[in-house]
Amino acid sequence: MCESNVYIEKDGKEELYLENVDILKPGDGKIFMRNLFGEQKIFEGVIKEISLIKHKIVLTKG
Amino acid sequence: MCESNVYIEKDGKEELYLENVDILKPGDGKIFMRNLFGEQKIFEGVIKEISLIKHKIVLTKG
Repeated sequence: MCESNVYIEKDGKEELYLENVDILKPGDGKIFMRNLFGEQKIFEGVIKEISLIKHKIVLTKG
Repeated sequence: MCESNVYIEKDGKEELYLENVDILKPGDGKIFMRNLFGEQKIFEGVIKEISLIKHKIVLTKG
């Protein structure tokens, strides 16, 4: 499967925020996300970098 | 492989912009992207929606 893990970058470190994410929708300074198991989270910030081959999405405070 | 195709949404339609994208880096109202073959593009706009299971990323003018 091609889901990714979402990490939050803070103070130069990356912390796992949500695993197996399928859907991301940025908007209004927030990012809605939902994973394969239906778990949903909203993070206040922006997408910093996406690397699909590494299955990795990094968010950061806006 | 888990790369995605990037589409631009315009007037309710989605147009293919770059295939087999691995890396995306949003910033300053632009989105830098690079695909598996080293092809790079910069789009002026924002990420509207990402659906990794569908291998689909939709961008739109900011």
